[in-house]
Amino acid sequence: MENPGYCSGSFDGLHHPSDDDDDDMVDIAGATLDFSSTDDVPPLNRDFAAGMNGNGPAKLVDPLEDPVPGLGTYEDFNTIDWVREKSKDRDRHREITKKSRQSTVALLHSVSDAFSGWLLMLLVGLMSGALAGGIDIAAHWLTDMKDGVCLIGFWFNHEHCCWTSNETTFQERDRCPQWQSWGELITGTSEGAFAYIMNYLMYIFWALLFSFLAVTLVRAFAPYACGSGIPEIKTILSGFIIRGYLGKWTLIIKTITLVLAVSSGLSLGKEGPLVHVACCCANILCHLFTKYRKNEAKRREVLSAAAAVGVSVAFGAPIGGVLFSLEEVSYYFPLKTLWRSFFAALVAAFTLRSINPFGNSRLVLFYVEFHAPWHLVELAPFVLLGIFGGLWGALFIKANIAWCRIRKSTRLGHYPVTEVLVVAALTALLAYPNSYTRMSGAELISELFNDCSLLDSSQLCGYKQVSNSLADRPAGEGLYTALWQLALALIFKMMITVITFGMKVPSGLFIPSMAVGAIAGRLLGVGMEQLAYYNHDWLIFKGWCSPGADCITPGLYAMVGAAACLGGVTRMTVSLVVIMFELTGGLEYIVPLMAATMTSKWVADAFGREGIYEAHIRLNGYPFLEPKEEFEHSSLAVDVMRPRRSDPALAVLTQEGMTVGEVETLVESTHYSGFPVVVSQESQRLVGFVLRRDLLISIGQNHILICVSHFNVNPQLPSDNAPEAPPPLRLRGIMDLSPFTVTDHTPMDITVDIFRKLGLRQCLVTHNGRLLGIITKKDILKHMAQIANRDPDSILFN
Amino acid sequence: MENPGYCSGSFDGLHHPSDDDDDDMVDIAGATLDFSSTDDVPPLNRDFAAGMNGNGPAKLVDPLEDPVPGLGTYEDFNTIDWVREKSKDRDRHREITKKSRQSTVALLHSVSDAFSGWLLMLLVGLMSGALAGGIDIAAHWLTDMKDGVCLIGFWFNHEHCCWTSNETTFQERDRCPQWQSWGELITGTSEGAFAYIMNYLMYIFWALLFSFLAVTLVRAFAPYACGSGIPEIKTILSGFIIRGYLGKWTLIIKTITLVLAVSSGLSLGKEGPLVHVACCCANILCHLFTKYRKNEAKRREVLSAAAAVGVSVAFGAPIGGVLFSLEEVSYYFPLKTLWRSFFAALVAAFTLRSINPFGNSRLVLFYVEFHAPWHLVELAPFVLLGIFGGLWGALFIKANIAWCRIRKSTRLGHYPVTEVLVVAALTALLAYPNSYTRMSGAELISELFNDCSLLDSSQLCGYKQVSNSLADRPAGEGLYTALWQLALALIFKMMITVITFGMKVPSGLFIPSMAVGAIAGRLLGVGMEQLAYYNHDWLIFKGWCSPGADCITPGLYAMVGAAACLGGVTRMTVSLVVIMFELTGGLEYIVPLMAATMTSKWVADAFGREGIYEAHIRLNGYPFLEPKEEFEHSSLAVDVMRPRRSDPALAVLTQEGMTVGEVETLVESTHYSGFPVVVSQESQRLVGFVLRRDLLISIGQNHILICVSHFNVNPQLPSDNAPEAPPPLRLRGIMDLSPFTVTDHTPMDITVDIFRKLGLRQCLVTHNGRLLGIITKKDILKHMAQIANRDPDSILFN
Repeated sequence: MENPGYCSGSFDGLHHPSDDDDDDMVDIAGATLDFSSTDDVPPLNRDFAAGMNGNGPAKLVDPLEDPVPGLGTYEDFNTIDWVREKSKDRDRHREITKKSRQSTVALLHSVSDAFSGWLLMLLVGLMSGALAGGIDIAAHWLTDMKDGVCLIGFWFNHEHCCWTSNETTFQERDRCPQWQSWGELITGTSEGAFAYIMNYLMYIFWALLFSFLAVTLVRAFAPYACGSGIPEIKTILSGFIIRGYLGKWTLIIKTITLVLAVSSGLSLGKEGPLVHVACCCANILCHLFTKYRKNEAKRREVLSAAAAVGVSVAFGAPIGGVLFSLEEVSYYFPLKTLWRSFFAALVAAFTLRSINPFGNSRLVLFYVEFHAPWHLVELAPFVLLGIFGGLWGALFIKANIAWCRIRKSTRLGHYPVTEVLVVAALTALLAYPNSYTRMSGAELISELFNDCSLLDSSQLCGYKQVSNSLADRPAGEGLYTALWQLALALIFKMMITVITFGMKVPSGLFIPSMAVGAIAGRLLGVGMEQLAYYNHDWLIFKGWCSPGADCITPGLYAMVGAAACLGGVTRMTVSLVVIMFELTGGLEYIVPLMAATMTSKWVADAFGREGIYEAHIRLNGYPFLEPKEEFEHSSLAVDVMRPRRSDPALAVLTQEGMTVGEVETLVESTHYSGFPVVVSQESQRLVGFVLRRDLLISIGQNHILICVSHFNVNPQLPSDNAPEAPPPLRLRGIMDLSPFTVTDHTPMDITVDIFRKLGLRQCLVTHNGRLLGIITKKDILKHMAQIANRDPDSILFN
Repeated sequence: MENPGYCSGSFDGLHHPSDDDDDDMVDIAGATLDFSSTDDVPPLNRDFAAGMNGNGPAKLVDPLEDPVPGLGTYEDFNTIDWVREKSKDRDRHREITKKSRQSTVALLHSVSDAFSGWLLMLLVGLMSGALAGGIDIAAHWLTDMKDGVCLIGFWFNHEHCCWTSNETTFQERDRCPQWQSWGELITGTSEGAFAYIMNYLMYIFWALLFSFLAVTLVRAFAPYACGSGIPEIKTILSGFIIRGYLGKWTLIIKTITLVLAVSSGLSLGKEGPLVHVACCCANILCHLFTKYRKNEAKRREVLSAAAAVGVSVAFGAPIGGVLFSLEEVSYYFPLKTLWRSFFAALVAAFTLRSINPFGNSRLVLFYVEFHAPWHLVELAPFVLLGIFGGLWGALFIKANIAWCRIRKSTRLGHYPVTEVLVVAALTALLAYPNSYTRMSGAELISELFNDCSLLDSSQLCGYKQVSNSLADRPAGEGLYTALWQLALALIFKMMITVITFGMKVPSGLFIPSMAVGAIAGRLLGVGMEQLAYYNHDWLIFKGWCSPGADCITPGLYAMVGAAACLGGVTRMTVSLVVIMFELTGGLEYIVPLMAATMTSKWVADAFGREGIYEAHIRLNGYPFLEPKEEFEHSSLAVDVMRPRRSDPALAVLTQEGMTVGEVETLVESTHYSGFPVVVSQESQRLVGFVLRRDLLISIGQNHILICVSHFNVNPQLPSDNAPEAPPPLRLRGIMDLSPFTVTDHTPMDITVDIFRKLGLRQCLVTHNGRLLGIITKKDILKHMAQIANRDPDSILFN
């Protein structure tokens, strides 16, 4: 099944969940239901029910085993029931604790169960760290391959190739005879127009080859491997099921194609996809432990930690990674997960460091070291960068979503391979002549963050040498050239990223967004520096920027700009500042970063409150209930529930007086995924809730006469009489006797809060104790879409 | 009213909430109720109700104003209703947004309302930072006062006194003629036994004076100022009301007495109380903004941020502070609060730094810089330190709680002043002869964390000089003396802290716990160092610790030990590691810290799952529903609800057929804090819930005939008839038409989850749509106490 997501572009060959599977999505004149809780009936009660049946002596139902296969599982593209999953886990844990008092083996089992979470975290950290290291090394090698080849062995990258050479000096570390550019190899000389053209052509050739391989592999083996994966992971963590999205094929193909896509020179990064890779690792490793394999809620705790691991290895920022998971990705993040995420993030960071893919023992992606402090006056340009970042973020989201809509609705979506090849060719063609676009995004950012030392030979440090100090210097020829190139690079990056993000290759947004911001920041920084140099006597510079002092650090501006743009696109706040703090390691620069990030978020929010990930979630119609946004409207539960006033009455099962035939007819004649059970049609007093899926499984399994009159279970209560005939065991087990209810007068803001906090899928609505209707997560999302004047039918899945 | 908390020791003069105020805590043969939601009825509905009454045209109820004074407020020692408070705020916000479209003034009001949160955070940060700076400076001065006096001005502390002197060299910075010890001043010489005895006596005199002043001020003006305050703040943040606990008197007295208590040399720290001080600042500043003054839930968001600010200024660790608030203190911590806490924590940290109380421009309390990396083999001693920390933590909690119980139950509690004086005298008497106990806790930790440089003249660095390098050296005479003194100091600190924490003076636990761990760690560190020095050839040292290498850093062991002990006592995990990380600034040392903290937590948890703060909450019987612990038992809602089977039936109001007289009789004859409203006594179908307090206020306010038959409100529903006579407005407004319900079969683990996540105070229990009973937060806490074999009546408040 292909990914119905944005990066598929079109729905060619897509098995839409509702195409042939009416149970999955039912929406005819009534409530659209998910499959709901069955195991909420606690063991105590189940035991009691089991003991009541006439088939034999009381039988303990073991929560460690599934009594009926399929019961209590979910279909693809459906939402899980958090309450039931957590309750299931608690039952399991209770059972293990109870058993552990009985034998030593059981005690050991209980201990190993308690530590399995930590072991799993360790494995996730090790595997993700190792994979990230591998990806770094491979991408580095393939990126260099576009330029040339190492004569002493093609498997060396440029840097390693020259390490082995003795002829290089420290100054010219990256030039050595062993490394030959393609032009040199073909024409025999590294000079001249012909060599340049050959290099250019080879650059385009490799870019096309890599991107073709990437898109073909993705299409052939793992359509889910495309894109950054963060929107889908957010949706999955909120409780949605997308089978195969975190599977082994996705992992393998995403790892390989990520390397290819990054090396092809397309304007994309590997940071977002690394989160997907880490989540795949976690999901696969979950299969080793029953506790996590069988419980969707527990598995999502591990996935939350894996998201932290992904950012930890992407930026070498474990604390920032944990906060990223907490702030941006996770839905349910208990404190236990916080602690475990932190552990896994550290393990991954140290694994990556011991692999040492950058060859410098550095944990972080961009190591930054500034010498001069910043001055309060500089807050003005930092806020300016924040405004730029916010505007760019808002513009980028609008443009990218518009482009993705075009891809979805026009024939463009039918040619994903052609699209990738055209964009790759365009990128290579335009990028090669400009050295700042030719280098990889990470290299570019690294260079822009860099503070110019005295010996620095790069173009960006092409100042006129006036004295032998690090003080502010006038810009020289080299720097002016660099500024022009940077300005062109800025425009190019801004345009190309819009059409690149969303193509059918793995593509992250962090690096391209940061690159745009870093370029803008560096330009402003150099501008400020020159302004200060030539106008020491201006009021704003007086007192802190005297002649011969080192007052403005353009690298800091680049960093602030990068944070602002990334903040504008993703709307990250704390985690972004902490990631940047971990890059510099000093609290000094937090205030500029914070000022820019805050401004950026406010400016961008003024144009639309959604970040790029939420926008893509909405574009794809995933059933995601945003935990950050407040529900502002003043409607009541009765306004949102189904059936509406004009609809036919709610289809219910009654506790008494219904035959098996009637039940079967009801199930067959309707498409609802679940049915409330009431005392009688007249009273409409609610007893419980039963799922269509479980009902069908039970009928199929048992082939026995169903006597619905014995749905009623608990004879301890004085108001009810104990059943007289032996009740059918299975149907008792599947009825949820504790369905969630709200009254019809409950304001929707409270109802939405309940859905979010408890992770519900549906909730019954009552009035004066009588069943009135039902609200599902999808009803809420549709209602919210309606309020926001969007198409309520854009919510696709359950 | 005095604090009924642990640091009061006894309940002398205590106004117990249930002494004269039966509404507050009622527990007679039925449910114990809090005051519940009234404003949950949304404006739409209220407008409708208002429009229905015959007194005039439809009147809009403005949620920005309280219609009836007292309605919707809480009494002291009661629990707030989070759902209602948040709903109130959303109504308010909705109203402002609606109005902002009408005029420019309203628009400006809306904008200023949106930014008031940020302004408040800025003010909290500035005020807390300034106060923390003041406390640091004053405590430093008073601590030095115990030793001697500055001749050129008594207001200089030792360091400042000698700064003004020109005669000091860098080496002997802390010796100058201007600074005279008391012995020197009195006897004329700094040498000799007489001078020593005079110093000793003066030391004890000042200690007694300071501690006497501290305890007297606390008793006379602000009994809530004692203790660390963190248990109470945790309880308040979970939704409890303790009036005056965060008031201006508490702030003033706590600030003053904190300085006195710290200076008196008692074994206590200022870090915990700083959290209380920051929360007081936040609470007082909340009064400037209607949004926060009038809403208990919004105010708690600010208090959560203030807790982060407290730790930020205590350790100079803003990120650690935010995580501390998230992990340890807060109950409701939305993402918005995360972001604002971070901002406030940063502002506070920078305010403190610009005050520069330590005179070194350092943000952090202990600046640490290590040179040598650690080796994997060293994880074994680090884990050992973790075990020590865990054992000490568990032991400390047990001993301290036992001691507090003795204080509570015996006559000891009646003499808090004497107790403080005796402990202060004992501390001074025993501490003075040993230089490591004589210095303040923070100084001691700083010295223990310190890595010995070559020129270091302190006793702890009394190694034999064998070469001119930083390599491992054999221990010399000085070091051996230091080790003995440290061992004695360890025993002394362990004993004295147990009886100090809980006295009627402000007292924090962070520094004493860390001191114990740092001493143990340094001892182990020096031991390891000497072992490695003399046994380079042992298998475990081979390969990484050759002769002449600097392989073991005793300061790192001290730091790991400090983290382990603090972790054992408080059970902090991530936040502790991050605070320590912010002290060193390097990711390098996170792994040792993590290993020790994890071990410490596991070991301590094996002896009891509660940290010291939870233990004190339980000791004081606060109604605190621990969010971290899972509810393990398999009971059902029906087992916990009131009335029990043997109790008389639940007192309910009926929708029809009740006269005002009957209502008044019911209210007067029972003591319940609220009454469910049902359709009729026969059907017991639930309509809503009304609070005793609101009922009484409404009856008193209106002096009109109450026609309870018109409780029924919504004529839109087909099943009910519209009321015919004009209904009384007030009673409509006070009935909560959307009370929370669960069915009798709902497992308690799910019910507890609902209470925690939604912040409920009570929940009605139904069976087949009929009202069966009620569960309050207190019922749950009592049930949990019963399961844990504790006295259920230890839960004191509502």
